[in-house]
Amino acid sequence: MLFYWLNLIGIFFFTISGSLAARDKKHYHDYFGVFFTGFLTAIGGGTLRDMMLGAFPISWLSDRNILLSILFAFAFTLLFKTYIVKLRRTLFLFDTVGVGIYTIIGVQKSLEHGVNPFAAVILGLITAVFGGVIRDTLINEIPLIFAREIYATACIAGAVLFTTLLYAQVDTNVAATISMSTIITIRILAVKYKLALPKFDTGTSDN
Amino acid sequence: MLFYWLNLIGIFFFTISGSLAARDKKHYHDYFGVFFTGFLTAIGGGTLRDMMLGAFPISWLSDRNILLSILFAFAFTLLFKTYIVKLRRTLFLFDTVGVGIYTIIGVQKSLEHGVNPFAAVILGLITAVFGGVIRDTLINEIPLIFAREIYATACIAGAVLFTTLLYAQVDTNVAATISMSTIITIRILAVKYKLALPKFDTGTSDN
Amino acid sequence: MLFYWLNLIGIFFFTISGSLAARDKKHYHDYFGVFFTGFLTAIGGGTLRDMMLGAFPISWLSDRNILLSILFAFAFTLLFKTYIVKLRRTLFLFDTVGVGIYTIIGVQKSLEHGVNPFAAVILGLITAVFGGVIRDTLINEIPLIFAREIYATACIAGAVLFTTLLYAQVDTNVAATISMSTIITIRILAVKYKLALPKFDTGTSDN
Repeated sequence: MLFYWLNLIGIFFFTISGSLAARDKKHYHDYFGVFFTGFLTAIGGGTLRDMMLGAFPISWLSDRNILLSILFAFAFTLLFKTYIVKLRRTLFLFDTVGVGIYTIIGVQKSLEHGVNPFAAVILGLITAVFGGVIRDTLINEIPLIFAREIYATACIAGAVLFTTLLYAQVDTNVAATISMSTIITIRILAVKYKLALPKFDTGTSDN
Repeated sequence: MLFYWLNLIGIFFFTISGSLAARDKKHYHDYFGVFFTGFLTAIGGGTLRDMMLGAFPISWLSDRNILLSILFAFAFTLLFKTYIVKLRRTLFLFDTVGVGIYTIIGVQKSLEHGVNPFAAVILGLITAVFGGVIRDTLINEIPLIFAREIYATACIAGAVLFTTLLYAQVDTNVAATISMSTIITIRILAVKYKLALPKFDTGTSDN
Repeated sequence: MLFYWLNLIGIFFFTISGSLAARDKKHYHDYFGVFFTGFLTAIGGGTLRDMMLGAFPISWLSDRNILLSILFAFAFTLLFKTYIVKLRRTLFLFDTVGVGIYTIIGVQKSLEHGVNPFAAVILGLITAVFGGVIRDTLINEIPLIFAREIYATACIAGAVLFTTLLYAQVDTNVAATISMSTIITIRILAVKYKLALPKFDTGTSDN
């Protein structure tokens, strides 16, 4: 039940993040481009995950609430667009909350489908980042996930924490809440204090 | 039966649209690049749709006629290439007929698989445009579907019309014919009279 | 059994090819970008193939040895990175061996799933090249497979040879070995002697 609602909230946040990103680009200013980018950002990760798991029907084809959540997010973007776009950090925040939620949902659903824990962590990461990768590719930017490796590391840390807590018999909802908070906190701290992983340095001059 | 033949015709048209687009690009002048782009343009949308629906085996893996239709389209492109490329509008026309057919087939197959009507409309749109998005991404252009939002709106209008007509118990073949004609007509009129949707304007100076 | 081991070897080679390619790009210098690109290069083709075939669970979700093979490849890349990057040809070689193996595995698995031989050849090609297409797209380069059409032609030749040998009742392992060697040999000879297919020439001046 917690996961069902979290999913709808994640959908809402990712739709806004996709719509805002597209809105900022000249050639996506029309309504269709903005909304379609928001839609694909929201459903991309979960759709790829379900297609990989063979979990048919994939969620947004059978549950109308997901489409409703996307519609609410569109209405929200339209109503508050002037206000939202003034806060440059908003996009990052919406992306971060979405990524935190999707990582844990991705791990949880993968484990339910009998995937081994290591692959479940990777599927959690893919669920979380694929929508954003579609979004950033459509607007012709280097995907955010590759821009600052700490973003992906935060997901992996949260996903590993979640599987570990489940293994230690911690209640699923408690484990999910702790792990999501961890991901979101790491990402926000990373931006605030400009944390980064070491570079992949080969010691040659072309670095 | 109508849908089976329409699908083969759509495959034929999209193969040509993909081959022509690739042929125009310097780094895709060789035969393989041209044909592979045509192939992916033709099967992209239906493949993604079937993978999302869990409709296995996906059509071109089980029906040789689809591959035959692609081969005919290649032969057609080779035979008439000098003539075709002189007509700049030809590419748009092939794309438009393909899009009209694929939208309706996508909606129809989704409904058959028990998808709700709203999601079926979106799947119809994805079926229609995904091949073209692959084509335009491979040749490094902004996908046509995002360039003029009216193109996508035409698909959605046709898809909504089709589901409404089916709901009103209109014969499927009649409904399909009317809806396809609507999509194709809207797109052609849109180009002729330069119709466009309103821009997503936030009233800020960076627009 | 041969195919199981070949798959692990292919995974190993493609992971290195992806990691090396990403490592060469400034904005992918961090460890996550390098490893994730390697991972996607290795699993991309097989994942798409299994998703198209409806062959669930897809292999790396159920077989830990695949993830182990990727880890070994990462360790190998880290240990020998200074040495490897000095040999520019190494990347091509790793890609070529991977492509040879994946083509044949792709054809074999498709035939096992009842796909017709023509579609199986195409699926073999897609299995072989999709990981590389992801790799090259992520690092913003024209996919290698489109750069020199002879690369794809080598795959198709090997795939056709393999299905023909199977049809002629040749032992599967013998047929696989011959066909893979053919693909790898054609690609190496093509680079050495700068072989190319004829251009798609329309006789107009814009060529």
